[in-house]
Amino acid sequence: MHVADIAEVISNVPEEYAVALIRLLSEDVRSDVVAEIGPEERGKLLELLPAVEIAESVVNKMDSDDAADLIAELPLEKQSNVIKAIKNTEHAQDILDLLTYDEDSAGGLMAKELVKVKDHWNVSECVVELRKQAEEIEEVHTVYVVDEYEKLIGITSLKKLILSSPQTMIRDISKTDIISVKSDVDRKEVSRIMDKYDLVVLPVINEINQLLGRITIDDVVDVIVEEAEKDYQMLSGISEDVESSDTVWQLTRARFPWLLVGMIGGILGAKVIGIFDQDANPALMAFIPLIVAMGGNVGIQSSAIVVQGIANQTLSGSIAAKLMKEFGVGIVNGLLCGVILLTVNLAMDLSLDFSLAISISLVCVIIFAAIFGTWIPLAFHKIKIDPALATGPFITTANDIFGLFIYFYICKELVG
Amino acid sequence: MHVADIAEVISNVPEEYAVALIRLLSEDVRSDVVAEIGPEERGKLLELLPAVEIAESVVNKMDSDDAADLIAELPLEKQSNVIKAIKNTEHAQDILDLLTYDEDSAGGLMAKELVKVKDHWNVSECVVELRKQAEEIEEVHTVYVVDEYEKLIGITSLKKLILSSPQTMIRDISKTDIISVKSDVDRKEVSRIMDKYDLVVLPVINEINQLLGRITIDDVVDVIVEEAEKDYQMLSGISEDVESSDTVWQLTRARFPWLLVGMIGGILGAKVIGIFDQDANPALMAFIPLIVAMGGNVGIQSSAIVVQGIANQTLSGSIAAKLMKEFGVGIVNGLLCGVILLTVNLAMDLSLDFSLAISISLVCVIIFAAIFGTWIPLAFHKIKIDPALATGPFITTANDIFGLFIYFYICKELVG
Repeated sequence: MHVADIAEVISNVPEEYAVALIRLLSEDVRSDVVAEIGPEERGKLLELLPAVEIAESVVNKMDSDDAADLIAELPLEKQSNVIKAIKNTEHAQDILDLLTYDEDSAGGLMAKELVKVKDHWNVSECVVELRKQAEEIEEVHTVYVVDEYEKLIGITSLKKLILSSPQTMIRDISKTDIISVKSDVDRKEVSRIMDKYDLVVLPVINEINQLLGRITIDDVVDVIVEEAEKDYQMLSGISEDVESSDTVWQLTRARFPWLLVGMIGGILGAKVIGIFDQDANPALMAFIPLIVAMGGNVGIQSSAIVVQGIANQTLSGSIAAKLMKEFGVGIVNGLLCGVILLTVNLAMDLSLDFSLAISISLVCVIIFAAIFGTWIPLAFHKIKIDPALATGPFITTANDIFGLFIYFYICKELVG
Repeated sequence: MHVADIAEVISNVPEEYAVALIRLLSEDVRSDVVAEIGPEERGKLLELLPAVEIAESVVNKMDSDDAADLIAELPLEKQSNVIKAIKNTEHAQDILDLLTYDEDSAGGLMAKELVKVKDHWNVSECVVELRKQAEEIEEVHTVYVVDEYEKLIGITSLKKLILSSPQTMIRDISKTDIISVKSDVDRKEVSRIMDKYDLVVLPVINEINQLLGRITIDDVVDVIVEEAEKDYQMLSGISEDVESSDTVWQLTRARFPWLLVGMIGGILGAKVIGIFDQDANPALMAFIPLIVAMGGNVGIQSSAIVVQGIANQTLSGSIAAKLMKEFGVGIVNGLLCGVILLTVNLAMDLSLDFSLAISISLVCVIIFAAIFGTWIPLAFHKIKIDPALATGPFITTANDIFGLFIYFYICKELVG
């Protein structure tokens, strides 16, 4: 059974059994299995294991990045007990080092395990070194070449080592135009770089170019999936990361905040209607759902396109140019919808005046929603607020209120 | 400059210059650069290049998977002209082979280039073979071990080849529990497998276990990003893959269909209001935006959680159990919102009867929307319709109509 499958089984049994299963696993796979268990289930398991056991039978054989992630999840006191109990001092030092980085940065993603050789060595010296270093590294994707000051000056591959004669100098088979990141680069930027350059592994360096660690693609895939899920949840008005298997209470807590925003919007909407309802045509009321639905839909479409453009960096041109384009899209979609609604309303024997007024205000609501839905996430992005916040209920709620105002104002002017 | 950067520059200049730039590139990087250009820009460029030039200076040095993708984008006649003009018959055969697979399957993602050795060889024989095969393979992640019938029976790594003595038998340093996929497996499933098992490369086999090719993680990252974008666009009511840089016409076409759905919903909503408005309290009209907004928001939240659960396979338990849980979440959120609205309305001097009626109907609308928003994507999934279709405007529109009906019906019963 693959470690990921064992981890899946362990995640799905009661905690006492899970702990027993973990203790039954052979030492070779135990740390890999624990590294694969989701943070939530793992937290519960680790509570049941004493610090010494975590250090000796789990963390000891774990890659430094996974070990640091696991330890960071523990309560503070237990963290230091686990680290103290790690017998391999170098490993403990690596973990302590990694714990200092922000978890959303390149430093927080990297592992310390890598194969490093000196540039003045030849291939056979490298193979000797490789034998020493490679034991604890499962997958050697790249061999890093450093100078005497530990500065990263090249990379080479195992393929080149195999195909070159033992006396070949490493510097003659290494590539010097290396793509690397500094440790404080944001993880989203890391994932963009690895995706753009099709990298399987990316070296992390410090300010003076010294090699600190490496980031592997599997960790970046997790980042991509998490970021996509976060944006998806924002768009759907969910404020915390939840799954359908979470408790009713967790689900409620994640969903209530945006419902509250929607409700405040609804109460303000009632106020807007209150301003107009004394002297408005009662028949106008029937089209309120249509007006708010169209404003909301257009606003969500516009904001989603902007947020996706920001996320995959395809957004180009000035803000003014983008607003002008949205104005164009708004006019075309608005006119299409307006004409259809006019036809339907006339076919239903509504008066021409009244039907025209409703359609004209619909066109205005759609144009406004398109521009507003484009502008808000751009403005958020400019002032360093996550633009994804401006996608879901935020934009629909704002458009509901403005849309109602536009609708009643125009209809009142046109048909009294 | 890295090929991805060159590709970016070429994508952003007018086509005539782009073609000139491509012709200026050295042969070593030309095919890599063209492989990196997005399909849309690339299509325009390839129109300007004659078939023979495409074959000789682009496709010839390209990996088989990229070459097949590129050729599949050409018009049919040009496809066969390009393939005929490829001088390397084996490469042409590989490409023809790959073109037979569905582009959304494992076969459509795989490349033919891989390093393959026989199980009865020793390490030094493998290195000789590697020297032959590895020239055209940039990154050798894994060495595949096959038997005399080309059946995949093991994998080994370059690390093991380097660290073993030349006389070691390959079968003694190869792993036999291999994770592989059949060529007809869906690409979403491929990405789930590679993500779950943290794989950088995945072998593709046929029905009788013969090795056909390999899928590398960079292609799967593209799949993950595309699938996430598709779901995001569905949730925001966009029916085609668009970017903010597309033309007004493309953007309009992608957005209009769901606006039409929303408009039909709005017209039906007007009908529902029409049924009740003769004898309903006119003050009820002011709360229409609140009712439809809350129904819409709750419905989107519920459906998004289901769709995400289906996408990352964390959905467990029966449909009935999930609906019961949503009932619970609906009750809690509904009561919270209902009590807040009651307090606000009483504070605004609305009558107790009236305020109670509005709050009670709000609770019912929220509970209905939660259950409906959960049930629809589950039902779609069951009958093999993409559940993401049931997230955006579809669910809000349906909830608007049902919500209005529930609201007016309950309020009429309670306050006449």
